Amino acid sequence: MRGKTISDLKVGDYAEHSKTISESDVYMFAGVTGDFNPAHLNAQAAAHTMFKERIAHGMLSAGLISAVLGMQLPGPGAIYLSQTLKFLAPVMFGDTITARAEVTERNVDRNRITLKTTCVNQTGKVVVDGEAVIMPPK
Amino acid sequence: MRGKTISDLKVGDYAEHSKTISESDVYMFAGVTGDFNPAHLNAQAAAHTMFKERIAHGMLSAGLISAVLGMQLPGPGAIYLSQTLKFLAPVMFGDTITARAEVTERNVDRNRITLKTTCVNQTGKVVVDGEAVIMPPK
Amino acid sequence: MRGKTISDLKVGDYAEHSKTISESDVYMFAGVTGDFNPAHLNAQAAAHTMFKERIAHGMLSAGLISAVLGMQLPGPGAIYLSQTLKFLAPVMFGDTITARAEVTERNVDRNRITLKTTCVNQTGKVVVDGEAVIMPPK
Amino acid sequence: MRGKTISDLKVGDYAEHSKTISESDVYMFAGVTGDFNPAHLNAQAAAHTMFKERIAHGMLSAGLISAVLGMQLPGPGAIYLSQTLKFLAPVMFGDTITARAEVTERNVDRNRITLKTTCVNQTGKVVVDGEAVIMPPK
Repeated sequence: MRGKTISDLKVGDYAEHSKTISESDVYMFAGVTGDFNPAHLNAQAAAHTMFKERIAHGMLSAGLISAVLGMQLPGPGAIYLSQTLKFLAPVMFGDTITARAEVTERNVDRNRITLKTTCVNQTGKVVVDGEAVIMPPK
Repeated sequence: MRGKTISDLKVGDYAEHSKTISESDVYMFAGVTGDFNPAHLNAQAAAHTMFKERIAHGMLSAGLISAVLGMQLPGPGAIYLSQTLKFLAPVMFGDTITARAEVTERNVDRNRITLKTTCVNQTGKVVVDGEAVIMPPK
Repeated sequence: MRGKTISDLKVGDYAEHSKTISESDVYMFAGVTGDFNPAHLNAQAAAHTMFKERIAHGMLSAGLISAVLGMQLPGPGAIYLSQTLKFLAPVMFGDTITARAEVTERNVDRNRITLKTTCVNQTGKVVVDGEAVIMPPK
Repeated sequence: MRGKTISDLKVGDYAEHSKTISESDVYMFAGVTGDFNPAHLNAQAAAHTMFKERIAHGMLSAGLISAVLGMQLPGPGAIYLSQTLKFLAPVMFGDTITARAEVTERNVDRNRITLKTTCVNQTGKVVVDGEAVIMPPK
């Protein structure tokens, strides 16, 4: 239950976490956060948007990034300091999203690592891009 | 169901969205994202962390920011371009979190607004701080 | 709200409980248990398995057996002592599963009954087979 | 995303998966399976049982066993052939359950492993005991 310490980690290490995003995921995410934006929950309204159908919340994909960091790299015991997110493309219901985190910097003195974090769909398109800073467990 | 256009918006406009974060919110967020980090779901393991008890996922608070942007400011029809997040303090089960978004910049030519986004707990402590860039509906 | 006592029960008594298993059932089951096996939640990965698509967790069907025992035969007040399960065929999203429990043995002295427990899909195929031992309410 | 093959596995290998079982877990499990036994969902009725309060479904703990098998040992790509379960003690809301699977037999010719599977609460008490038979991925 203890994740990797900074001495276990090196630049280039990566981990992934994948899930097909279902309608029920989007509806439960809306229920928890209160983000009832019709773009996500209203098929009639969404038909008139540029995406033509309901799309998942961008922050739901960000949640998959949180999962890969908290479960695998560095895993339990890490402290999540910051995250940047660019929402580059929509996630449609039924898309399979793979969140990937890769160590890009390592600061042993301050016990911090920086990771490139991306979410990619089943066609290889990057839907979310950004960077996380984490304090690994000691 | 149509949000505010850029001509409806000015620097200093703000909106808020509040919720008391329950154990079930955290559990459902874990269920949707796959983030089963014991810091969130395992009371025994969490007792040995610096926070002494289970805490909410930082990205759950970020979901409240998404809600305030997508529901109110600018509201439906906006395109969420980017978000930065600094996780400054833990959210305990039972904390009441208020997400607040305030317009700090307005670029009419490119149809973009920048908002300062914060999540504050019931004691006034800032738990998440950051910035969103949004394309309001036309 | 009180189930059948052993004197109400005889060998050959049976009860059934049916449900069409939805994607959201599988996703919520994964969310509760933490079983994010890609066979259940990742359509891309599942396409490369022998089943060609996502399948339900075997233990979800077992949950329908628990329902028929706890709700009907013998019903509330019973103590569930043991269960054996053979997973004989996959359950696809949209399959309608009928859990059936039939009393096969009755031990009045020890207040125990044994039931043959099966889950059958809409084509009559047995997907789960096994045996439960229960202590009926007094 | 590929689990361990039989050549990666040896007798004595084990893995664990832990979670504090919440009221919301039990309620969602009930909603998915239809097991609305008052022992799990009715605090008034449960007060008159031998356990004096609502308890979790035994099959929910079994779901944690499924998670450890499907996620870790052997992990993705395994085929779950059978499971035996003895329900030895109740799981109360708020209990932290650790599912553990340990390889006890290995049949290379038939590509099958047998695992001792237990669920233990935070006091070390075994609440579920049993055995799984699995076909690891090739």
